[in-house]
Amino acid sequence: MSGLHQLAADFLETCRARVDAELDQRIEQESASGRLQEAMRYSVLGGGKRIRPALCLATARALGQSDDQALVPACAVELIHAYSLIHDDLPAMDDDDLRRGRPTTHIAYDEATAILAGDALQALAFGWIAEAPGLSESVRLAMVRELAGASGHRGMVGGQAIDLESVGKSLALSQLETMHRHKTGALIEASVRMGAMTAPSVGEQALAALAGYAKALGLAFQVQDDLLDIEGDTEVIGKPRGSDAARSKPTYPALLGVAGARKHLDALLASAQQSLREFGPEADPLRAMADYVVARTH
Amino acid sequence: MSGLHQLAADFLETCRARVDAELDQRIEQESASGRLQEAMRYSVLGGGKRIRPALCLATARALGQSDDQALVPACAVELIHAYSLIHDDLPAMDDDDLRRGRPTTHIAYDEATAILAGDALQALAFGWIAEAPGLSESVRLAMVRELAGASGHRGMVGGQAIDLESVGKSLALSQLETMHRHKTGALIEASVRMGAMTAPSVGEQALAALAGYAKALGLAFQVQDDLLDIEGDTEVIGKPRGSDAARSKPTYPALLGVAGARKHLDALLASAQQSLREFGPEADPLRAMADYVVARTH
Repeated sequence: MSGLHQLAADFLETCRARVDAELDQRIEQESASGRLQEAMRYSVLGGGKRIRPALCLATARALGQSDDQALVPACAVELIHAYSLIHDDLPAMDDDDLRRGRPTTHIAYDEATAILAGDALQALAFGWIAEAPGLSESVRLAMVRELAGASGHRGMVGGQAIDLESVGKSLALSQLETMHRHKTGALIEASVRMGAMTAPSVGEQALAALAGYAKALGLAFQVQDDLLDIEGDTEVIGKPRGSDAARSKPTYPALLGVAGARKHLDALLASAQQSLREFGPEADPLRAMADYVVARTH
Repeated sequence: MSGLHQLAADFLETCRARVDAELDQRIEQESASGRLQEAMRYSVLGGGKRIRPALCLATARALGQSDDQALVPACAVELIHAYSLIHDDLPAMDDDDLRRGRPTTHIAYDEATAILAGDALQALAFGWIAEAPGLSESVRLAMVRELAGASGHRGMVGGQAIDLESVGKSLALSQLETMHRHKTGALIEASVRMGAMTAPSVGEQALAALAGYAKALGLAFQVQDDLLDIEGDTEVIGKPRGSDAARSKPTYPALLGVAGARKHLDALLASAQQSLREFGPEADPLRAMADYVVARTH
C-alpha cells in the first residue's frame, strides 16, 4: 500500500470512528417511540465507510479549517444517506433483504416502521444542520438549501426516479451519467460543498474547483462499482462478463466495454486530482480519498 | 350560518385559493423526472381545505402582519402534510386506495413513485423555507428548526409510530392525547408558530398564547373527527355507535362516551378561544377558524 493509500485508509478510519461516535451520541439523545428510535438507530449505526462525512471533513481541512464545525453537517449528510438506503431497500423499490451483511430495516423491523424511520431521519438531518454548533446562521441556512437541493427531486430522489424509469431500457452514456449525477453524485457533491461552507471566506474559484473534484469523484465511484460487479462475477462467481447488461441494468462496462470503462475511470480520477491543483498539502486527504476509491477497482 | 362562521368560510376560501395558486406555480417551476414531478403535483394539488396554511396566514394577521411573508412557509407546511398523506396511504401503512375521492398516489402511479414523491416533497419543504422571501435568515432558520422538530420523530412521524404500536391495544385518555398531539397536533402547532415567526418582535407571551390555541385546536380537530365518524355511522350508514371501538381503534367517544367527548370538545374550543383573550379583532380569523372547525360536528 502506497503512502497516499495509507493516508487515505488512516483518514477514513479516523473519520469513521469520530462520525460513528457523534451519530451514536446524538441518536441516543433523541427521544422517540421505542420501536421507531430503535429502527433509526439500527439503520444509522449499522456500519458503512462514512465516505460522505469523510469528504465533508476532508474539504474543511483542504480549506485550512479545523474540521470541528464540519462534524454535524457531515453527520446530517449521513442521515440522508441512511434514510435513502432504508427506502431503496423496501419491497416496492429494490426489495433487498440484506445490507452490509445484516437484515435491511424493513426485515429487522417491518415495512411501516422502515418507511417512518427513513422519514424521521430526513427531518432530523435538517434539524441538526439548523442547530449545528460553531456556524453562522447564514452558513447553516446555506447548508439547508444545499442539502434540500441535493437530496430532493432535483438530486438524489430525482436520480432514483430516473433509475426506476430506466429499468429494461437502453441508456446512452449521457443518460447514464445524468442518472448517476443525480442518484449518488448530488449527495457526494453536497458533502464537499458543505465542508467548504465551514470556511468563512471560501472563494468562488475554490468552491468551483472542489465541486469539480466532487463531480468527478462521484462518477468514478459509480464506474468503479460497475467494474467491481463484473470482476466479482468473473473471478468469484464465474459468470460471464456483461451479465449486468444481460439483466438490462445499464452500466459503464456495458456501454464502453471493460477496457473503455477502466479508461473512463482513469480519466475521472485524473480530472478529480486536476481540480485540486491549486490546493496545497492541506488537500492531501481529498487527494488520497480519490486515489483510494479508484485503487480498489484494480 | 352565523357571522363568525361566514368569516371563517370566507377566510378559508380566500386562503385556499391563494395557497393553491402559489403551490401550483411553485411546483410547476420545479423540474424533475416526468413521472416523479407528476406524482408530486398530483399529491399536492389534489384538493384539501388547506387548514394548516390558513392557520399560518391567520396567525400572521393576528400579530398585525401582512400575511405575504407567511405564504411560502404556509405552503411548506402543506408539502409536509401532503408527503405524510402519501406515505400513510401506502399498503404497508393504512393501505388506502382513495383520498378525497381520487385514487391515492401509489394507486394513480405506483408504490415506488409514491415513496419517492413523499421523500422529495419533504426535502422541498425545507428548501422552500430556506429561500422564503421577505424573512430574515434568523427567522428562516428558526422555521427550519420548527418544521424539522414538528414533522420528525418527536412530532408527526413519532405520532404515526405510536399509532402503529397502538393497534389493537386499549389506550388511556392520556395516551390517546399523546398520540394525537404528535400525529396531527405538532404540525398544526408548527403552522401557528411559523405564522407567528413572521412578526419580527413577537413576544414570548403572545407566542405561548398562540401555541396554547394551536394545541387545543389540534386536539379539538381530532375529537371532532372521532365524533363525525360515529355520527356518520349512526345517521348515514346505520351502524351502531361505538363501531370504531369495536374495530379496536382508540377514540375519544370510546373512552369518554359520545356525550363526554362532546363535552371535551367544548372544553377544548373554550380553551382555544381563551388563549386568544389578549388579542384584538386582528385575531378574528383564528377565532373564526376554531369555531368553524368545531361547529361542523353539531
